[in-house]
Amino acid sequence: MKRSERLVAMTHFILDRPKELISLPFFSEKYEAAKSSISEDLGIVNKMFQHEGIGYLETVSGAAGGVKYIPAYSKEYSYEFVEGLCKRLEDPERLLPGGYLFMSDILGDPETTRNIGRIFASAFHDKEIDAIITVATKGIPLAYAVASYLNVPVVIARRDPKVTEGSTVSINYVSGSTRKIQTMVLTKRSLKQGSKVCIIDDFMKAGGTINGMKNLLKEFEAEVVGIGVLAEAEDEDEERVVEDYLSLVQIMNADDRKQTIEVRPGNLLEYLS
Amino acid sequence: MKRSERLVAMTHFILDRPKELISLPFFSEKYEAAKSSISEDLGIVNKMFQHEGIGYLETVSGAAGGVKYIPAYSKEYSYEFVEGLCKRLEDPERLLPGGYLFMSDILGDPETTRNIGRIFASAFHDKEIDAIITVATKGIPLAYAVASYLNVPVVIARRDPKVTEGSTVSINYVSGSTRKIQTMVLTKRSLKQGSKVCIIDDFMKAGGTINGMKNLLKEFEAEVVGIGVLAEAEDEDEERVVEDYLSLVQIMNADDRKQTIEVRPGNLLEYLS
Repeated sequence: MKRSERLVAMTHFILDRPKELISLPFFSEKYEAAKSSISEDLGIVNKMFQHEGIGYLETVSGAAGGVKYIPAYSKEYSYEFVEGLCKRLEDPERLLPGGYLFMSDILGDPETTRNIGRIFASAFHDKEIDAIITVATKGIPLAYAVASYLNVPVVIARRDPKVTEGSTVSINYVSGSTRKIQTMVLTKRSLKQGSKVCIIDDFMKAGGTINGMKNLLKEFEAEVVGIGVLAEAEDEDEERVVEDYLSLVQIMNADDRKQTIEVRPGNLLEYLS
Repeated sequence: MKRSERLVAMTHFILDRPKELISLPFFSEKYEAAKSSISEDLGIVNKMFQHEGIGYLETVSGAAGGVKYIPAYSKEYSYEFVEGLCKRLEDPERLLPGGYLFMSDILGDPETTRNIGRIFASAFHDKEIDAIITVATKGIPLAYAVASYLNVPVVIARRDPKVTEGSTVSINYVSGSTRKIQTMVLTKRSLKQGSKVCIIDDFMKAGGTINGMKNLLKEFEAEVVGIGVLAEAEDEDEERVVEDYLSLVQIMNADDRKQTIEVRPGNLLEYLS
């Protein structure tokens, strides 16, 4: 196999396995090439990944060493993406009663969710994470997008226990916006005790749902190492109960009667810089 | 930029945009290379994608021409993956009351869902599809995985109308397994009238849920061009109400009292060959 051919195959192989340690001998055998050639190839891949702003190859030295693709999205691309997202969201036609925003088209677009996942994965890439958790329904595509770049499983809490999942742990929590008592359940088998988890959701006002997830995770003795929400909005009636989160965008002054809305970048961009 | 470097960048760029037409002049400008060099590069990419079993580049000729990455997963890999999946599922510990199977670990693994998406996308790649539809919750990751390889949006029907999504269309349907009347809703804005859609779900017994989606889609004058389910199982009490579907695996003789289960490849593998 020629170098040019090998580079196409290796690029695909590496992109498909973020955060997975791949050894030089493995590549050497797979592509029938000398370790020195493979080493040069990896240098080219690393250089170009950085050039394209999609991350870099981390070298792990030693006998059990190799390379790991770290999907750290460039700040430049992150800024560009978040600014575009603000513009797409800042459309009064999206306003729904109660200060909510129609976002299903954005959440339904796999390319957009993939990019959101990339940005959150970049923000959390240096944390040790065993699983991503979200609550059904709209956070699910985001949770998978993040998980796919961090190469960890997704765990989905539900608001209704399903008969088809086996025994569950459930908690009650107060939703900030509606002030109703709600239930959240998680299948026992789905998360190991003591896991390090990252919470991902689409929308946060007072933060009752995220707080609910945190309480549910306590039952699993899990440690929350990160919280990411796509959009945060102010809640006039309720103080925020969650701190230490990263948001991609911030929705301000949403008023469906006056048909006004303002969307600006969330705190994630500051965190990245 | 050297050819070797360009190939890394191009491979990433193309993989990130399945089924999207990219013109030669675009690449030529982006990478500052002659069209003849780009053309040779694309030949190498095409050859290696086929070699790696991840699809091929389709050439569209003419003034508005270019190349499109068609993510057709090789039969060999599809067989290997499905057989591995059967083995993972054929574990009596997965059995839940009612002939259901615990699959959350499999559905929670982004690499597995990505591969399932690849295989369905390969099966449906020659159909004209405007959107993928699924019903919350467990089919969602599969729907996104398929959609991401076909480069189309995902639309999610729900069993509970949410206040935060605007006006909806709803239907009632009878669930085959529980024989209960259930409701399914879809936000009006989420799907254009007359769309060509592909239904994706995780599990099918008699097919009541899939049939419900079909009826819901009638309200949108949508045309169902494909149906894919991860796992199908027999329902002793009810005849199947859905035909023309593709399944990845087939669950046979699941009995939680006797602790027996048999899982074999579904009809998708036959369809591919």
